[in-house]
Amino acid sequence: MFGPLLTDLYQLTMLQAYFDRGMDRPASFELFVRKLPAGRNFLLAAGLEQVLQYLEQLRFEPPDLAWLAQTGRFSAPFLRALATLRFTGDVWAMPEGTVFFPAEPILRITAPLGQAQLAESRVINLLHYQSLVASKAARCVLAAPQRLLIDFGLRRAHGGEAGLLSARASYLAGFAGTATVQAGRDFGIPLYGTMAHSYVQAFDDEAAAFAHFVRSQPGNATLLIDTYDTEAAARKVVRLAAGLAGGPAAIHAVRLDSGDLGLHARRVRAILDAGGLAGVRILASGNLDEHRLRELVDGGAPIDGFGVGTRMNTSADAAYLDCAYKLTEYDGIGRRKQSEGKATWPGRKQVLRRAAGDGRFVGDLLTLEGDGAGGAAPLLQQVMAGGVRTGAAPTLDASRELARRQVAALPPALRALEPAPPYPVAVSDSLAALARAVDERLGLAAEAAETQGA
Amino acid sequence: MFGPLLTDLYQLTMLQAYFDRGMDRPASFELFVRKLPAGRNFLLAAGLEQVLQYLEQLRFEPPDLAWLAQTGRFSAPFLRALATLRFTGDVWAMPEGTVFFPAEPILRITAPLGQAQLAESRVINLLHYQSLVASKAARCVLAAPQRLLIDFGLRRAHGGEAGLLSARASYLAGFAGTATVQAGRDFGIPLYGTMAHSYVQAFDDEAAAFAHFVRSQPGNATLLIDTYDTEAAARKVVRLAAGLAGGPAAIHAVRLDSGDLGLHARRVRAILDAGGLAGVRILASGNLDEHRLRELVDGGAPIDGFGVGTRMNTSADAAYLDCAYKLTEYDGIGRRKQSEGKATWPGRKQVLRRAAGDGRFVGDLLTLEGDGAGGAAPLLQQVMAGGVRTGAAPTLDASRELARRQVAALPPALRALEPAPPYPVAVSDSLAALARAVDERLGLAAEAAETQGA
Repeated sequence: MFGPLLTDLYQLTMLQAYFDRGMDRPASFELFVRKLPAGRNFLLAAGLEQVLQYLEQLRFEPPDLAWLAQTGRFSAPFLRALATLRFTGDVWAMPEGTVFFPAEPILRITAPLGQAQLAESRVINLLHYQSLVASKAARCVLAAPQRLLIDFGLRRAHGGEAGLLSARASYLAGFAGTATVQAGRDFGIPLYGTMAHSYVQAFDDEAAAFAHFVRSQPGNATLLIDTYDTEAAARKVVRLAAGLAGGPAAIHAVRLDSGDLGLHARRVRAILDAGGLAGVRILASGNLDEHRLRELVDGGAPIDGFGVGTRMNTSADAAYLDCAYKLTEYDGIGRRKQSEGKATWPGRKQVLRRAAGDGRFVGDLLTLEGDGAGGAAPLLQQVMAGGVRTGAAPTLDASRELARRQVAALPPALRALEPAPPYPVAVSDSLAALARAVDERLGLAAEAAETQGA
Repeated sequence: MFGPLLTDLYQLTMLQAYFDRGMDRPASFELFVRKLPAGRNFLLAAGLEQVLQYLEQLRFEPPDLAWLAQTGRFSAPFLRALATLRFTGDVWAMPEGTVFFPAEPILRITAPLGQAQLAESRVINLLHYQSLVASKAARCVLAAPQRLLIDFGLRRAHGGEAGLLSARASYLAGFAGTATVQAGRDFGIPLYGTMAHSYVQAFDDEAAAFAHFVRSQPGNATLLIDTYDTEAAARKVVRLAAGLAGGPAAIHAVRLDSGDLGLHARRVRAILDAGGLAGVRILASGNLDEHRLRELVDGGAPIDGFGVGTRMNTSADAAYLDCAYKLTEYDGIGRRKQSEGKATWPGRKQVLRRAAGDGRFVGDLLTLEGDGAGGAAPLLQQVMAGGVRTGAAPTLDASRELARRQVAALPPALRALEPAPPYPVAVSDSLAALARAVDERLGLAAEAAETQGA
């Protein structure tokens, strides 16, 4: 469905220009976020696995090339070169589940210029979205510790791939599972499901709807009880359980989806407990995000799990990250953009993270690859060499465990939902020196050009 | 890539329950938006074509069924029934490009209960996102009339499908084109492209980068001039044009991407004009949305076109619509949800739109299908009967023209970016009477159930 044409036109016209001039020296591009969204204290890296699959599979098939040819924008020799283009570069990246901060590269691609350039659009598209969702979902997990969080957001995610990948990113960030069936199949994520209001409405009688569902899904049934009157429905569940062959164990949970969730949960809990259904859980859903979760949890609402949808899957309070994929080196020379407010750090960089004796993170250093780490942990690891993976991909559960440990090691103020003072990220002397050298070189080049032009 | 498993688990468990009980009478579900996002005055329907393709192609393939079987959640007879499931229902919908308001159904599916239920997740997923983006893009078009607007947002759209479909939805809403190549191939949308900062940086000299690009893309070249110093780069463009065999015509445009876009545009325009390049256009990009566009346009910035990305493709100020797909009739009987704050209108509905003599819309009536239109225009049209389309799909350009006419016919206050008093949408007596009848019937049923339960 998404091939090499899922890219920006300028990638292909730039590649044509590079091809015309034979510019194919090694180039390094790095992907980083310029600044945190308002109110956020950290970000969580996710989506690398899909990036590596994209790079492995990158190739122009004959129909792609035929379509490009008929646009009239590209030369025949260039299109012949595209036909054999494969990704042969190196990739360094923070493992999925790593916490990161502004200015820190989470991915570096070093490859012949055209390959590294071409990858830009889709690499950002994949890494940006999953990191966005994982970062939002991690806040939900922090807000509702020990509660079951389930991704319910396929329907209002932005298209099908967003639905699928947000299930993955939220699971990585600590959600217990998803309602999206394909995410269960593709990624092995635990699946959860309840029932819709339409199911209850299709029956003439709510109690009959519940009874039939429990027969159809014994032990698995989660009954939605807010279609008409929540507490009345809870009493129907009690009566139903009394008559079930399997007893109360046949009913897994009830779900609330409207009104004051905390209030209804307390009333329903009381009704269920009084009716001998202490083992039936209460799930809640409806416009939830980290702030609403914390309100409910801090308010002591007897809710065992939450279906979290739209606001998590769209990261509704901050629907994008201000990220960029920038050229930092070409043909062995550091490169740097000087646009107003958008200047970038040159060179192939590494991020070193220092931790205290108890494992808590105390600060990062943005430095050049090859600089001594001095006991700090280098966050960027080589994951692809010459277009081939350097090892097996970590399992999704391993990445999830890494995310858990990374978030737990954050300074406590950064784990709060409220904005905290920024985590310290320093720039090494070597990197600062390279930036100055690049500026001087550009200044000299500009002077030379002015002289030529005069 | 996205098959029938791109759905919520509960759709399949509900279908199992319906199957167990032989519940397959006709059901009508309608998709509508509950309320407008803050600050918005209208919405624009988009995405119907992808919905119809989904319904036409809906089928479970053997690998899907094998995977479902191994989950242990479904019976073998049910899975055999899924194997032959095809969509055989009717679909009524507002044509793409129709303006709509809260509570108005933009799509109705009437089909055997299971089919209509199963479709829910993906139908919302497709219709919600394109309508969201088209509604946002329409505001950009209103803010920058007569300017070229180009979708630049693939990279930060939420996944690949969002990148592709937001190109379609924004074109439908009046954008001139997109940078996303696959959208050009799949939908015939005009493609636009410029160059990246990395292209300029890969050269030792900016002027050489420009000169080479113009040779490689004669007549098509849009030069990005803010990598180092915008006005200095504009002067390089003037010197370059003087030396070109094709003259200034070989350079199509320059692009600004940082700093005060209005200020730079004025300076650059002056430099280009003084250098004999009055025909070279100025494009601008960078964090644009409808408000920033209006500021620039109203401020008289000499900018001919805008690349609009992230904030449009993610609808950043309102990343989702509060939409729902609700059962309104089953087995000939109106159905209605009464959840707190989420009650819905029962029955198969129609939306009638009245226009004044000059064609301007003056108000809508939410009524029941089959009620007399009294000279008003019925907005929902039948687009599928028995699972087959009733006619050829309109071309994307026809939908774009409809959108243009619909937005132009809005009351002027609703075309402003500022919030306006709501557009009048009334409820017919017949619909209000049906809602009362449904409530009474539910009340009687509840009483009967209490009696049985006692």
